[in-house]
Amino acid sequence: MRKVYVIGVGMTQFGKFPEKSFEELGRVAAWEAIKDAGINPKDIEVAYCGNMMGGSLFGRDFGVGQLVLREVGITGIPIARVENACASGPTAIREAWIAVGSGLYDIAIAIGVEKLTGARKGVTAMVGDSIEGVSGLTPAAMWAMRARKHMEKYGTTLEQLAKVRVKNQKNGSKNPRAQYQKIYSVEDVLNAPMLSDPLTILHACPVTDGAAAAIICSKRVAKKYSSHPIQIAACSLKSGTYPTLRDISVNDLETRAAKEAYEMAGVGPEDISFAEVHDCFTIAEICRCENLMLCKEGEGGRMIEEGISEIGGALPINPRGGLLAMGHPIGATGIAQVAESVWQLRGQAGARQVQGAKVALTHCSGGFVDDDNGAGSVIILKK
Amino acid sequence: MRKVYVIGVGMTQFGKFPEKSFEELGRVAAWEAIKDAGINPKDIEVAYCGNMMGGSLFGRDFGVGQLVLREVGITGIPIARVENACASGPTAIREAWIAVGSGLYDIAIAIGVEKLTGARKGVTAMVGDSIEGVSGLTPAAMWAMRARKHMEKYGTTLEQLAKVRVKNQKNGSKNPRAQYQKIYSVEDVLNAPMLSDPLTILHACPVTDGAAAAIICSKRVAKKYSSHPIQIAACSLKSGTYPTLRDISVNDLETRAAKEAYEMAGVGPEDISFAEVHDCFTIAEICRCENLMLCKEGEGGRMIEEGISEIGGALPINPRGGLLAMGHPIGATGIAQVAESVWQLRGQAGARQVQGAKVALTHCSGGFVDDDNGAGSVIILKK
Repeated sequence: MRKVYVIGVGMTQFGKFPEKSFEELGRVAAWEAIKDAGINPKDIEVAYCGNMMGGSLFGRDFGVGQLVLREVGITGIPIARVENACASGPTAIREAWIAVGSGLYDIAIAIGVEKLTGARKGVTAMVGDSIEGVSGLTPAAMWAMRARKHMEKYGTTLEQLAKVRVKNQKNGSKNPRAQYQKIYSVEDVLNAPMLSDPLTILHACPVTDGAAAAIICSKRVAKKYSSHPIQIAACSLKSGTYPTLRDISVNDLETRAAKEAYEMAGVGPEDISFAEVHDCFTIAEICRCENLMLCKEGEGGRMIEEGISEIGGALPINPRGGLLAMGHPIGATGIAQVAESVWQLRGQAGARQVQGAKVALTHCSGGFVDDDNGAGSVIILKK
Repeated sequence: MRKVYVIGVGMTQFGKFPEKSFEELGRVAAWEAIKDAGINPKDIEVAYCGNMMGGSLFGRDFGVGQLVLREVGITGIPIARVENACASGPTAIREAWIAVGSGLYDIAIAIGVEKLTGARKGVTAMVGDSIEGVSGLTPAAMWAMRARKHMEKYGTTLEQLAKVRVKNQKNGSKNPRAQYQKIYSVEDVLNAPMLSDPLTILHACPVTDGAAAAIICSKRVAKKYSSHPIQIAACSLKSGTYPTLRDISVNDLETRAAKEAYEMAGVGPEDISFAEVHDCFTIAEICRCENLMLCKEGEGGRMIEEGISEIGGALPINPRGGLLAMGHPIGATGIAQVAESVWQLRGQAGARQVQGAKVALTHCSGGFVDDDNGAGSVIILKK
């Protein structure tokens, strides 16, 4: 495998756009990434499209990548859809990374697009024929139980959980592409309508439509088009059991992905300038900072309490606003994390800039409580 | 890219199994491929699962690959689902080929699994929100129009179309895994119930459940485990427009994929010992033999008429029975074609053996009439 770089990124506004098509969302993200890279769409040799629910929600059983990329004049080349639950976006990045790293192609696009509004059925249908679907154990209910367990085991408080939303919302307020840009107080979060006790709706990420894209290339191409290419120093994907109720905090899946990524990139958690962590719920950010070894086991609550994870803190987490403020258009999320990382590492993140950022970590995990059905991804990007 | 080999293949019986789960189908195929390769499941480092309609038909929006492979003890490793309409299977093969070719992994599994029976809605739902879905232009209607056009333009006859089914059924009668193993006459095909004039139901492949798998590895591993590894000499994937009604026979998408594959493998159509061609309809085999340059434009009818494509003919087409006799479990089909090719190239195809087979070509295409939404794959395997 040769070295692989990101030279262009793009994304849509994230939000609820029931009237917008896959094509419209994808076009905006792809075009921005292409312009950002300074390449011609015809230079792109291979494409991967992350999308999870197009078939289930919209009968888009195939052709999502093809029809989206046609909008920017990309056709003829190999285009494949990849899906890996909430890690569908990073799986698209990963396949592009391997395709370029193999030497088979010099320029790839990874695009993620998801529409979760405007369908005839609701997105909770996603639990399908799994144990959760049959028993009614929704993601909110699962994370509520995890929150209780974390509070009981490590003394984490509801206020600490609420502070995750407050922090990410504060970051999101500086991000014009965030679905919610309003600042919330701890009280706002605690007093919002109850979703699944003890989690109110403000502990959960919203339902969102959006797209994101990245142009991935070889060193030769990166040098030609960019004075500030960002290296994909590691791109780890693991399968396994999504956090269970038995082992609430230390999740083997995420930890294994992180360990491999640190080793591949030749860095440790102490070298990470900031991280984009899959905060589908406030408690998820806390658990996952622990799993990714960004703090010690049980200290996720303290991390937020002491301001460590704020922009300006020792290890900023989710400077773009995370899933909580940005929303979570599933196939797009992991690529949007990479887009934010590229902007941050270039020093282009404006009011939410992490000063001196050199190494970024992005993380996504997906799955349900059924053993071994999960996917966990960790990407490390270097300036 | 280093050289890549197939050392083990497996597949289920193809047929209608509404009571069987994804896991049960996948387990049978994966386990056979693993045993055939002589490896331990724990040796497998990366996995790709081709599946198209799990989300749409069964709410299996994610985890298909993970849950299927868990059945044979494969977990922890990177597992990704890939989808590319009817080319989902070869897309799984292709990603495994790139992952091993890149040097990142030594052993991969590509598995395809599809359940089309047992769902609450029918599979014609797959046309979704496309032009065809809205207008009621089903695949059968499209291929019926293509058949009319081919007959008008090239003098192809209904009897020639029927002979494609007769031939593939004769081949399928020698394949214990075929969904239909009965021998049909030309009259049987012509007099069957009308599906979409002039195509009767026997001109179309049936609705099918099934799974297939292949173990893909580096030269070093191939030498260790196999005395007869089969090389993946080419693995081409292209996007573009699926055959339109304007250009019925010469299809740019398929021809481009074939040209790249021939060039990559360093062979020409004249070197192909036999081909597995995506015969979703009888007319499709005829058009596609032309598109793949296995015969001249307009001579697909003559190819079947003169027995050229029979086992024992100059260029056997679909010795396993094709989609017509085998059925078409979408995500599994392209991998089943590779499995057949491996058995043929090893001389293990029993009563349907193509004598002296040295080079095999497999082809899948998917998409609908909407411009540019298609995927076309050609794989060339060498003894």
